[in-house]
Amino acid sequence: MKALVYKGISEKSFEEHEKPRIINPTDAIIKITKTTICGTDLHILKGDLPSCSPGRILGHEGVGIVDEVGPAVTAFKPGDHVLISCVSACGKCEYCRRGMFSHCTTGGWILGNTIDGTQAEYVRTPHADTSLYPIATGADEEALVMLSDILPTGFECGVLNGKVQPGNTIAIVGSGPVGLAALLTAQLYTPARIIMIDLDDNRLAIAKRFGATETVNSTDGNAAATVMQMTENRGVDTAIEAVGVPATFELCEQIIGPGGVIANVGVHGKPVALHLETLWDRNIAITTRLVDTSSTPALLKIVASNRIDAKLLITHHFRLDQILDAYDTFGRAAETKALKVIINA
Amino acid sequence: MKALVYKGISEKSFEEHEKPRIINPTDAIIKITKTTICGTDLHILKGDLPSCSPGRILGHEGVGIVDEVGPAVTAFKPGDHVLISCVSACGKCEYCRRGMFSHCTTGGWILGNTIDGTQAEYVRTPHADTSLYPIATGADEEALVMLSDILPTGFECGVLNGKVQPGNTIAIVGSGPVGLAALLTAQLYTPARIIMIDLDDNRLAIAKRFGATETVNSTDGNAAATVMQMTENRGVDTAIEAVGVPATFELCEQIIGPGGVIANVGVHGKPVALHLETLWDRNIAITTRLVDTSSTPALLKIVASNRIDAKLLITHHFRLDQILDAYDTFGRAAETKALKVIINA
Amino acid sequence: MKALVYKGISEKSFEEHEKPRIINPTDAIIKITKTTICGTDLHILKGDLPSCSPGRILGHEGVGIVDEVGPAVTAFKPGDHVLISCVSACGKCEYCRRGMFSHCTTGGWILGNTIDGTQAEYVRTPHADTSLYPIATGADEEALVMLSDILPTGFECGVLNGKVQPGNTIAIVGSGPVGLAALLTAQLYTPARIIMIDLDDNRLAIAKRFGATETVNSTDGNAAATVMQMTENRGVDTAIEAVGVPATFELCEQIIGPGGVIANVGVHGKPVALHLETLWDRNIAITTRLVDTSSTPALLKIVASNRIDAKLLITHHFRLDQILDAYDTFGRAAETKALKVIINA
Amino acid sequence: MKALVYKGISEKSFEEHEKPRIINPTDAIIKITKTTICGTDLHILKGDLPSCSPGRILGHEGVGIVDEVGPAVTAFKPGDHVLISCVSACGKCEYCRRGMFSHCTTGGWILGNTIDGTQAEYVRTPHADTSLYPIATGADEEALVMLSDILPTGFECGVLNGKVQPGNTIAIVGSGPVGLAALLTAQLYTPARIIMIDLDDNRLAIAKRFGATETVNSTDGNAAATVMQMTENRGVDTAIEAVGVPATFELCEQIIGPGGVIANVGVHGKPVALHLETLWDRNIAITTRLVDTSSTPALLKIVASNRIDAKLLITHHFRLDQILDAYDTFGRAAETKALKVIINA
Repeated sequence: MKALVYKGISEKSFEEHEKPRIINPTDAIIKITKTTICGTDLHILKGDLPSCSPGRILGHEGVGIVDEVGPAVTAFKPGDHVLISCVSACGKCEYCRRGMFSHCTTGGWILGNTIDGTQAEYVRTPHADTSLYPIATGADEEALVMLSDILPTGFECGVLNGKVQPGNTIAIVGSGPVGLAALLTAQLYTPARIIMIDLDDNRLAIAKRFGATETVNSTDGNAAATVMQMTENRGVDTAIEAVGVPATFELCEQIIGPGGVIANVGVHGKPVALHLETLWDRNIAITTRLVDTSSTPALLKIVASNRIDAKLLITHHFRLDQILDAYDTFGRAAETKALKVIINA
Repeated sequence: MKALVYKGISEKSFEEHEKPRIINPTDAIIKITKTTICGTDLHILKGDLPSCSPGRILGHEGVGIVDEVGPAVTAFKPGDHVLISCVSACGKCEYCRRGMFSHCTTGGWILGNTIDGTQAEYVRTPHADTSLYPIATGADEEALVMLSDILPTGFECGVLNGKVQPGNTIAIVGSGPVGLAALLTAQLYTPARIIMIDLDDNRLAIAKRFGATETVNSTDGNAAATVMQMTENRGVDTAIEAVGVPATFELCEQIIGPGGVIANVGVHGKPVALHLETLWDRNIAITTRLVDTSSTPALLKIVASNRIDAKLLITHHFRLDQILDAYDTFGRAAETKALKVIINA
Repeated sequence: MKALVYKGISEKSFEEHEKPRIINPTDAIIKITKTTICGTDLHILKGDLPSCSPGRILGHEGVGIVDEVGPAVTAFKPGDHVLISCVSACGKCEYCRRGMFSHCTTGGWILGNTIDGTQAEYVRTPHADTSLYPIATGADEEALVMLSDILPTGFECGVLNGKVQPGNTIAIVGSGPVGLAALLTAQLYTPARIIMIDLDDNRLAIAKRFGATETVNSTDGNAAATVMQMTENRGVDTAIEAVGVPATFELCEQIIGPGGVIANVGVHGKPVALHLETLWDRNIAITTRLVDTSSTPALLKIVASNRIDAKLLITHHFRLDQILDAYDTFGRAAETKALKVIINA
Repeated sequence: MKALVYKGISEKSFEEHEKPRIINPTDAIIKITKTTICGTDLHILKGDLPSCSPGRILGHEGVGIVDEVGPAVTAFKPGDHVLISCVSACGKCEYCRRGMFSHCTTGGWILGNTIDGTQAEYVRTPHADTSLYPIATGADEEALVMLSDILPTGFECGVLNGKVQPGNTIAIVGSGPVGLAALLTAQLYTPARIIMIDLDDNRLAIAKRFGATETVNSTDGNAAATVMQMTENRGVDTAIEAVGVPATFELCEQIIGPGGVIANVGVHGKPVALHLETLWDRNIAITTRLVDTSSTPALLKIVASNRIDAKLLITHHFRLDQILDAYDTFGRAAETKALKVIINA
């Protein structure tokens, strides 16, 4: 079969690869119908994630058709239409029992990281019964690709961790795909004000269209002062960090109000300065999280009932044999205005 | 009357001072019977808290007898025996309505900070109805002095914020008075293991007596490795920081397990490095809090029912006219083995 | 001044009455600009609430202008534009400190019940600082009248107690004003499905317009079976009882799914049969609540940001001197299709 | 092998029975070392549980040694020492993913009910990976038998559902084995007062020994008045119903304070009168629950750290071939003073 293979820092190849086979009795083999590219795939290509070795098929998102199941799989059978979660969960270990699937001792985020992923014609999914979701007849496949990773990430790491509540004022720092996913899902809890902060006016314009009530371009370095002024010096109830660099995290520290929550979503590569000398008495919480996809069942119902238009995030379409172009387009997002790209396998 | 007055950095004086008078209709004047010294008082004397100006009577803890009440005070009358909370709360503002009394817009921690405090014969307590608590006949006054600040601080900032739960494993970094207050109150939630960490073997021995199940002397710099080994590399469910310096906070970052909480109790004077490059995917929370004393009603019942022996924290007794000696003893705690000192006014 | 006075069972009179005066230092006198009638007022007239004695001015909802304040009132001054909460809260007692203002030991729901109410030119509001809310310039007064009682009641007793969550399926039994208030505020949490149940097709049509996704006319006695079929025999996650009779409560018992919540909003006059023989192992919760109006600050922000159109509930307008007509119209709601009536004083 | 078999109402037999075999790949066969009898077994014998057909081996509690595992079992192997949970959980279905194992669509409480149980030499346990727990070397097996059902039942249905909190006042109605299990586990949250209510002075004396602070013999019909007097008419914060008849549930309704929780633990056979005419405005919650055993991992740590002495509940010992005597002793508990009986297989 054909697959997109990581070949080492800055190198990737779309090439012929052996079709995956059942290894454990709880595995399934899925024929991919649609997949996509994640910012994390770009991180791997930059060499930021040493857990991913050269030779690995990338990708941890997608929908497809069950091709084959191991003897212990009971919830799915060949021909079933399924959503693939970016997180594999055994359902048995201490962490899975606590609903913290991201830390499953034999799973977590392994697809396209420590085992071969979804940017291929077929993928092996471990712990199939607890890592795949049935797709209802007539559901919109493209919308569901957004449920593999980006929507649950924005929702769990940003909105749920951030304790967004009706009537609250929230800020989201970073208007890229994951910040926008947080924006879309934050509205499930009806905050009164959603302030979107970014360096790029185009992305802020998109945020307005997606439901932000106010936007702040932080290029001038005055974003913190602007937000404090907008909130009559109270600060925000929730600040969602959706970038992953020290400057944006410290901005969250500056705008968080007493009793508020800073919910980190960004993938960070270095330490940030935590200003406990001003924050120690602010009664705040800071949260981190690798998405557990524990919210996927709820998100499936929400998307099915048209409460969120997940397809708003999709800007481009490619065929699997165009995946190198898709990477190029996704990688130059500032120019191409790409958010999520759908790849039809 | 006599009072202990802050005179500027490193200077204090026990001197004659005008007796306080009712200023607002919600004020009360309390004749102090017992007070104590807090680590924060030493911080003021070091010049760490510029909010406190020279000329200020120090002290934010104590019990006493109501001497006079303003016309709007309805819950207390002269002669009532009361506990003074370190936090003054109006009960009306946005923050008080959320139970976050520490951020009361006309109160919070002001006693012995921005208004005159309790290390005196009399003190004026603002918002008396919502900042004083009646003392039951026969209650042990000395035990109750521990409820002005140190027990609610350990309990709210450490134990409640830290979400200590039955069966969990917790670590407390810092075995000084506030760390020991966290240790005493953590046991209200019956964790299976309480690991106490400090540089001082004497304080660790006290911690054992107070209920710690294990102790680690961190002098050798291997505390993180030791705790990880003790927990089979899982880390702890809750890490309570009760010192207030970067090294101890970073130790908490190193030992916190997936899904755990770092509850900051220490008063910090500078930023700490937050290692988001390793913590971003750990599903942890970090909390900060100035004590709200919202737990005081519960703690009063707990102490009254002998579920906590608050007096364990008391090591020395002085008369008010010996308060300079009391400061000396409390300030040289490593030598004198002082925890809390009672000052009888 | 003129006022609507309860004269005994089934008797009321619009008559001249002495203008209220400040009694306690925390009182305010409010000149009413708009008030309304509540279903509870009809209950009083039926003799269902013996706490309300003949001679009492009815009404516990309204907005107005501060006319006079007692000496201990600090948050308001004459001329301020205010929303009057149906619940008076001292902010000091054990229950107020827990945020359970409905059980304030010197307040709770007393307006138009045990003290004179708002269906008059003036009203005395006890505990003014913690029972009134400032109205922003330019706010829509009529919408805010809905925040005195009906919206917080639907929200707190139905939606918050019912733990409505994004993606969930909820049922609301009773499509009268309070059921519709629950319907409007339930959408703040974006349930996937909202099934509205009533005997009256007109009210169900209104519910559809207000956001119900499905409706069930329960006249045929098959509502439980219908809901179970609609939910593939799972039952609903939340059932909100908004009528107050045994039959509707038992309907909730029949349709609640495992792990669900029955949130009672209705005012009941007799016991209901709780079928523990089938419910003991269903892992459900049943909640009751007199509105605390603790959600009023949040609802004010939500209405101000146009997230809820509170005015949808208003069907009729009257002048204060037409209040007997207003009662007649409100009392014959099935015929007049009245929901809430605004009375301009 | 030998087993205790239900033969129809009031009939049971200790007889030869075929040894169980692996049916599904996730099954295990356990050689029982210790089991016990539950009040529910007596209910079955009375004919109260039609789900249990004649011919069924009874028993849903016990510890043992893994004899054989199905091909999909990964967490256990022959020779492992295990605790058997009374609830079988697939770990995959909608309810298991929500932690509500009691409603597992292919499990729940099936052992000794709809499939053969543990009062035998061997038992087949479905969903072995998620329904068995490893026993640490040196652990006390008899104490662990209390973790199959009775301790998690008292803890989850009574204490956790009842939201027992430090400093609170709780009442437990029914001082039989499950009420005493609630009493033991309630102390994990350090309530200030625990009022135990029963008809039997012997059981109340045991309750005192187990940690009750006060006891009330309800024989005189004045228990409600007594409790209200003991609480200065406030009522209790939590009332745990551990009997299962209307009178005891209604007693809970009478003594619950505003904001409190009635946590039902008892197995009920008929409806009870819910006095909504007095409770509708009390801001209470009523909860029901079939134990999920989701707390078993925590309880294992708690028992291992000697925070609860589970063996306090054990009063008698028998060999498996004496199981008919054991039933007799357990069935005449008022006379024999039996709480839990250990049966050594």
